[in-house]
Amino acid sequence: MRQDTNPLDRLMAKRGLDAIMVSGKLHGNPSLVYLTRGAALTKAIVVKKRGEAPSLIVAPIEREIAQTAGLPIILTTKYDYRSLLYEYEGDALAAYVAYVQRILADHNITQGRVGFYGTEDSGRAYVFLKTLQEAFDTNDSPSNSRIEVVGEFERNVITEARATKNHSEVTRIREVGRRTMAIVKQTLTFLQTHKVGADDVLYKPGGDPLTVGDVHTHIHDLILQQGLEDTEGFIFATGRDAGIPHNKGTLDDLMRLGESIIFDIFPQEPRGGYFFDMTRTFCLGYAPDPVARLYEDVQACKHTVQQALKVGTSTGTYQQMICECFQARGHPTIAEKPDTLKGYMHSLGHGIGLEIHEDPFFRDTPDNMTLVQPGHVFTIEPGLYYPERGMGCRLEDVIWIDEDGNVHNLTSRETTGTCADDLVIPMG
Amino acid sequence: MRQDTNPLDRLMAKRGLDAIMVSGKLHGNPSLVYLTRGAALTKAIVVKKRGEAPSLIVAPIEREIAQTAGLPIILTTKYDYRSLLYEYEGDALAAYVAYVQRILADHNITQGRVGFYGTEDSGRAYVFLKTLQEAFDTNDSPSNSRIEVVGEFERNVITEARATKNHSEVTRIREVGRRTMAIVKQTLTFLQTHKVGADDVLYKPGGDPLTVGDVHTHIHDLILQQGLEDTEGFIFATGRDAGIPHNKGTLDDLMRLGESIIFDIFPQEPRGGYFFDMTRTFCLGYAPDPVARLYEDVQACKHTVQQALKVGTSTGTYQQMICECFQARGHPTIAEKPDTLKGYMHSLGHGIGLEIHEDPFFRDTPDNMTLVQPGHVFTIEPGLYYPERGMGCRLEDVIWIDEDGNVHNLTSRETTGTCADDLVIPMG
Repeated sequence: MRQDTNPLDRLMAKRGLDAIMVSGKLHGNPSLVYLTRGAALTKAIVVKKRGEAPSLIVAPIEREIAQTAGLPIILTTKYDYRSLLYEYEGDALAAYVAYVQRILADHNITQGRVGFYGTEDSGRAYVFLKTLQEAFDTNDSPSNSRIEVVGEFERNVITEARATKNHSEVTRIREVGRRTMAIVKQTLTFLQTHKVGADDVLYKPGGDPLTVGDVHTHIHDLILQQGLEDTEGFIFATGRDAGIPHNKGTLDDLMRLGESIIFDIFPQEPRGGYFFDMTRTFCLGYAPDPVARLYEDVQACKHTVQQALKVGTSTGTYQQMICECFQARGHPTIAEKPDTLKGYMHSLGHGIGLEIHEDPFFRDTPDNMTLVQPGHVFTIEPGLYYPERGMGCRLEDVIWIDEDGNVHNLTSRETTGTCADDLVIPMG
Repeated sequence: MRQDTNPLDRLMAKRGLDAIMVSGKLHGNPSLVYLTRGAALTKAIVVKKRGEAPSLIVAPIEREIAQTAGLPIILTTKYDYRSLLYEYEGDALAAYVAYVQRILADHNITQGRVGFYGTEDSGRAYVFLKTLQEAFDTNDSPSNSRIEVVGEFERNVITEARATKNHSEVTRIREVGRRTMAIVKQTLTFLQTHKVGADDVLYKPGGDPLTVGDVHTHIHDLILQQGLEDTEGFIFATGRDAGIPHNKGTLDDLMRLGESIIFDIFPQEPRGGYFFDMTRTFCLGYAPDPVARLYEDVQACKHTVQQALKVGTSTGTYQQMICECFQARGHPTIAEKPDTLKGYMHSLGHGIGLEIHEDPFFRDTPDNMTLVQPGHVFTIEPGLYYPERGMGCRLEDVIWIDEDGNVHNLTSRETTGTCADDLVIPMG
């Protein structure tokens, strides 16, 4: 997967970066989680000069859990922010600028371009990095450092490194996938255990109708039972709700035969680990003709795209391809009508990893230059939506491109046995 | 609690802010969660002009779940980022600057100071806000807007609003507290069900020794059973590990009588909701004299501080007070020795809410001007740590200051019945 042992040095060189600093709280900070290898830290700073090993700066109270990151550790007390707060008479911004200058100088980073990363309040980051740049510009810095403060707007050096998964990462994603597919099967089995009334509604053993909310509760429990976290919620939406891509389902709705049901599930390893992401569409008992045709169109176009996937092709090409396929079958798409609320109205897929949506993105916009690469793990998830006709359909698999460029479907019958790949779920 | 119906307008006026924009993904973005009232969105932008209602800008696919935020909704398609990407020939930064300028102009925000907030990659935020400011400075903007881009370094307009909880927020925190205290009691009961061997080690029914890892697994399950999330992990650390404040416990260690055990638990409502946070220290069977003296010192100093809490006093005063109390009892503290690794070595407490650590902070640094206020909900958590002597002790309660300035302990015997307030847990 990773073509070199240290992709960061290569990616830093490509961008002309002499050093990088990644900082912040760990929670909700996937780039910092990546560099600290999931160590259960609260806050951290990672500094790396190009061609040298990174160091990890942590508070003394976290000096032991920091060891699992496998990086040389420096305690924050070495740079003594507290004394700087006194020196700058309580001006926390000035003290923090001086603190970061101390850290950079201690790592012999005194000139060149330094990139800053890590999740933070945006206004805080702006005022800090602006003030840091001004401090360097006015030579108000230790050892006359002259540094250019660099921010990257979209794909950055860390997210680009993260987009290419190594064997250990793929193994973890596969395992989350195995559990996710088990949850999908368990959910279908759960639905099938219910009796169907004369009104085509599902009923619980006690005689009450089964609601979408009941199914949500059951799915949530199944996620936890599999040792996964329901970080971002899932979608289990029926009928009209299935016609709105991010509608999660109406909890009071009843479960009925013959409705299109979209089940999109994307659990995560505990404590900010790896995600999986898959979607199935099905009907209980029988599928009305319009839903069956929708399903056939999505399945056929998805097949066309998946067959065409290959290394070196722009991801935007596949978004064009799916739009053409849907248009040929008579569906409106965002390619013709960017604000359409029916037909095909989102992008084809996205990378998965420490974020549920990360590089590579499969959108057809002029800023997207991404090519499919070995090590990429991403979703392919075409869908068609007709809320006014009370139906929607989306099918989503996870694809992995191995180091030799072979395309693997991590959600397929081949690798996992059948996984709810049929539109109709027979009821007792 | 909240002294006015719209604290944001008052806080914006105090800072001379004419408008604010809060944006980003919702996950790990507590200020955006706060403004969108927990709506299950993926991404959003909230714009508010001072004295006017905020509006919520969301993608069409999330138009329905956005409604639970209770704000007027605008679809992103109105501002058409996609066409801007073409206009700027794929320059995503330039297109995004123009997009945000469109949004501000549409809200009639054409001059004055505009604050930017919301969690984002720090370098991305820097380059975006810098470029936005440059665009306004060069008059390269719609309707000749002249705007000052403002970032706030520490306590900002949103975190200050969040620091004062209203009744609904206090009710939710209390409920998380009730469940958290139940988990602590259940954990003690779980420990008490185990047999003690001649070696003072706890044994499981099958005959294997009970490990710290077994207890961790049980606590994790209890958190999930209570419908809470184990977002940030908990601390259940024994003996020497209890002497390192953020050591979470060594999973292979055995559970033994007479060791100091620190149990610090801080679960969260599902999907980025409210936290609770409490710590108890106990020994199974008996407490050795040194641990009993440590416990007595922490308990006595904690009592002194809690009795002194009152509205209008600087939070830093209480950090000074606890240091003086510990010093008088012969313990080293960070007040005398900022890099001490034994004795008292952290700050006294922190607000809790949508973040586990938020305003008000109880630290004694010259940048901390925070006064205790009605509506504050915060922890008081003194501790003493002696890793080389194989022991540590921390006790942590949650305090709520009501609208009349009365101090309530949300973790006390009075409000909850006894909750593991004894050092020694008797074993069968």
